Amino acid sequence: MSSQPDPTGKDTKPIVISVDAMGGDSGAHAVIAGMSESARKNPEIAFILHGPRDELEPLVNRRRGLAERVTFADAREVVTMEDKPSHVVRHGAGTSMWSAIDSVRNGDAQAAVSCGNTGALMALSMIRLRRLPGVNRPAIAILWPSRNPQGFNVMLDVGADVRADARDLLQFALMGASYTRNSMGLARPRIGLLNVGTEEHKGRPELKEAHGLMTRFAQAGNFDFVGFVEGSDLPGDVADVIVTDGFTGNVAIKTGEGTANLIGDLLREAFKFSPLSRLASILAITSLRRLKKRIDPRRVNGGVFLGLNGTIVKSHGSADATGVSAAIKLAFQLARSGFAEKLAARVASAADLTQDALEPAQKPEAKTEGRA
Amino acid sequence: MSSQPDPTGKDTKPIVISVDAMGGDSGAHAVIAGMSESARKNPEIAFILHGPRDELEPLVNRRRGLAERVTFADAREVVTMEDKPSHVVRHGAGTSMWSAIDSVRNGDAQAAVSCGNTGALMALSMIRLRRLPGVNRPAIAILWPSRNPQGFNVMLDVGADVRADARDLLQFALMGASYTRNSMGLARPRIGLLNVGTEEHKGRPELKEAHGLMTRFAQAGNFDFVGFVEGSDLPGDVADVIVTDGFTGNVAIKTGEGTANLIGDLLREAFKFSPLSRLASILAITSLRRLKKRIDPRRVNGGVFLGLNGTIVKSHGSADATGVSAAIKLAFQLARSGFAEKLAARVASAADLTQDALEPAQKPEAKTEGRA
Repeated sequence: MSSQPDPTGKDTKPIVISVDAMGGDSGAHAVIAGMSESARKNPEIAFILHGPRDELEPLVNRRRGLAERVTFADAREVVTMEDKPSHVVRHGAGTSMWSAIDSVRNGDAQAAVSCGNTGALMALSMIRLRRLPGVNRPAIAILWPSRNPQGFNVMLDVGADVRADARDLLQFALMGASYTRNSMGLARPRIGLLNVGTEEHKGRPELKEAHGLMTRFAQAGNFDFVGFVEGSDLPGDVADVIVTDGFTGNVAIKTGEGTANLIGDLLREAFKFSPLSRLASILAITSLRRLKKRIDPRRVNGGVFLGLNGTIVKSHGSADATGVSAAIKLAFQLARSGFAEKLAARVASAADLTQDALEPAQKPEAKTEGRA
Repeated sequence: MSSQPDPTGKDTKPIVISVDAMGGDSGAHAVIAGMSESARKNPEIAFILHGPRDELEPLVNRRRGLAERVTFADAREVVTMEDKPSHVVRHGAGTSMWSAIDSVRNGDAQAAVSCGNTGALMALSMIRLRRLPGVNRPAIAILWPSRNPQGFNVMLDVGADVRADARDLLQFALMGASYTRNSMGLARPRIGLLNVGTEEHKGRPELKEAHGLMTRFAQAGNFDFVGFVEGSDLPGDVADVIVTDGFTGNVAIKTGEGTANLIGDLLREAFKFSPLSRLASILAITSLRRLKKRIDPRRVNGGVFLGLNGTIVKSHGSADATGVSAAIKLAFQLARSGFAEKLAARVASAADLTQDALEPAQKPEAKTEGRA
C-alpha cells in the first residue's frame, strides 16, 4: 500500500481506512467482501486490516485487486459480542478492535470501521482517542429513512451512553448539526428534541431544561431548533436531526427496524398467497426493488461516533458485504471531508460560547421534580 | 336504555360503555359513527354518551337504531389536547371527560372510552377512580402487531407516566400478565423487560434491579420471565408482554407507527410508478388488503389503563369510526370478562406477596450509579 507517483502532480495519496476484521456476526469473510466492493468502486481508498493475518491474508488474496490496497496489522485476539466493555478496556490491548482504533490514534488511518461489540468499541475509542475538549458524553449518530428531501434524518444518541443530561443533549444538537452540515450539505439543519409530546410542559425535567438551552444556542450553533418532536417524527420531515439519550434512541431505532422487517416479511407472504398475487409480484418487481432500496437499512449502515479525536464508524454487527461497504463509504466520505477537524473546531467554539453563557440558563424549576 | 324482559330467563342486561364524545381530533361525528358501528355488530352493548346534548342528539338520531341504545349525559365543557392535566384535575368537573369517568365510578357503566387528551384522561382517572391498593403507578397497555401466534404483543407503559422504578416495572409485569391472560387467553404469558441489549450487565440501574425482581416473582405472578428484550422484539415472538417505562414505550410505539406509515406511503408510490406497477397493484389488491388489515393500527386501537378501580380505554386522538369502534369493542370485552375485578384480585395478592418478600431484594449495587 503506497501512493502512486502522479504525472499530473495532483496529490493522489489514498485515504486510508482502518478496518477491524473480527467480532462481527458474519465473520471476517463478510468484512473482506465489503472491503472488496468498496475498493472496486473507489480508486482513492486503501485499508489497514486488523486481525489474525494468517487467517485474513488468504481471504484478501482471493479478491482480485484487493491485496495491493491492504496493509495487515496482525492482532491475535478478538472482542466478542459478550465481552463487557470494562473488561475490554483493561485486557483488550491484543485485540483487532484495539489495533484498529490505534491506527486512527497514530495517524496511520483517517477513520476506522468495526462490526464488533458497540459498547466495547465506544469504551476503547474513548480511552484511546479521548473525548474532544468540551464534550462530556460522546454520541452515536445514525441515519434513518425519512420524508425529508435528503431521504434521511440523523438521530443521536442511539447507544453510546444510556444517560444524557440537558447539557449533553445540547452538545448532541451541536455535534448532530455539524455532522449533518458536513455529510448532507444542509447549511442550517433543523434540530428536534425527542419527547412524548410536543407541548412544552411535557416530558422529563432534563428535557425541559434542554429545550431552554437549545432555544438559546440555536443561533450560535447555526441550527434551527424546532422544539420537541415525537417518535413519529423520526421518519418524518419536521426535523433533520433528532436528539435523544442513548437508551431511548437505541430502543427507537430497533423498534423501527423490527417493525419494518415485520412488514417486509408480511408483504412477501402476501405476494405468495395466490397465483394472482404471485403474478402481481413479478409485475411489480422493479417498483418493489426501488422501495426496498429506499428503505434498505444496509444502505445507511454505519453509526458514527461523535465527540472523539478521530472518526470511528460502527457497522451493524450482522452486516453483510453491502452493509460493510456502506459503512466504509461513510468513513471514507467523512475522512475526505476533514470532518473530524471541522467537528473539533465547532465543538471548541461551542464550548467557549456555552461556558460563558450557561450558568444563568440553569433553570431552578427543573430541579424540583424527581429525575426520571 | 333499559334491559328488555327476556322470555328465555337468560340475563340480557346490556353492558354499558361510557363514551366521551368530545376532545378527539376527528370530532364527535367520528365517535358517534364508531358507536353506531359497534351497536350494529353487537346487540349486547349500550352507551352513556357525554358531551353537549343539543349537539350530540341530532348526530345520534341520524344513525338508525342507535338512539334507543344511548343515554345522554349533558356536559358543556371540553378537555382540549392542549390542556394541562393539572389544570383539568382542578377545573374539569364540567367536562365530558370527567363525566365519562364518573359513569364508571358510579357503577352506571362498566367501562369508559375517550379519544381525548391522554395526560388529562389519566390524571382524571387517577383522581376519580383511584389506584388499586398496591399500585404505585398505573400504566397504559397497548397491542402491537407481532410475529406471535396471537398476532400481537402487549406493551406497557406507553405513556401513563414518564418514570418507572424497579418496583413499578415489576407491577407492570404483573398487570400486563393479567391483562394478557384475560384478553388473549394465554395461561402463562412470557414477559420481557425492554433494554438496550439482552446481556444482564447492560442498561440502567433500575432495569438491572427490575430484572432481579421479575426473576424472583415470575412463579408467583404466573408468568415466564424471558429477561431483557430489545426494541426489535416488540414486533417479534420472544415475549407476549413487553415491559418498559412510559417515556420509552411512548417513543417506541410512535417510532414504529411512523415507520409503518412511511413504508405504506412509499409502497403506494411504488405501485403508482409505472403502468406495469399499477396493473400489479390491481392484481395484488386482495393480498395487500389482507396485509393492511393485519397491521392496521385502527384494528388494535385502544390503550387500556391498568391499575385503577375501573376500566378506561384511551382511543387514538385521531381515530376514525373504525378506530373508535375497535376501542369500544375492547372496552366491551374487558367489561364482560370482569377484567377490572380480576385485575384487582391479582394485584392484591401480588402486593401481599411482594410486600412480604421485597426487602431483601433491594440490591445495593443498583444504588451506586446515578439514576439515568
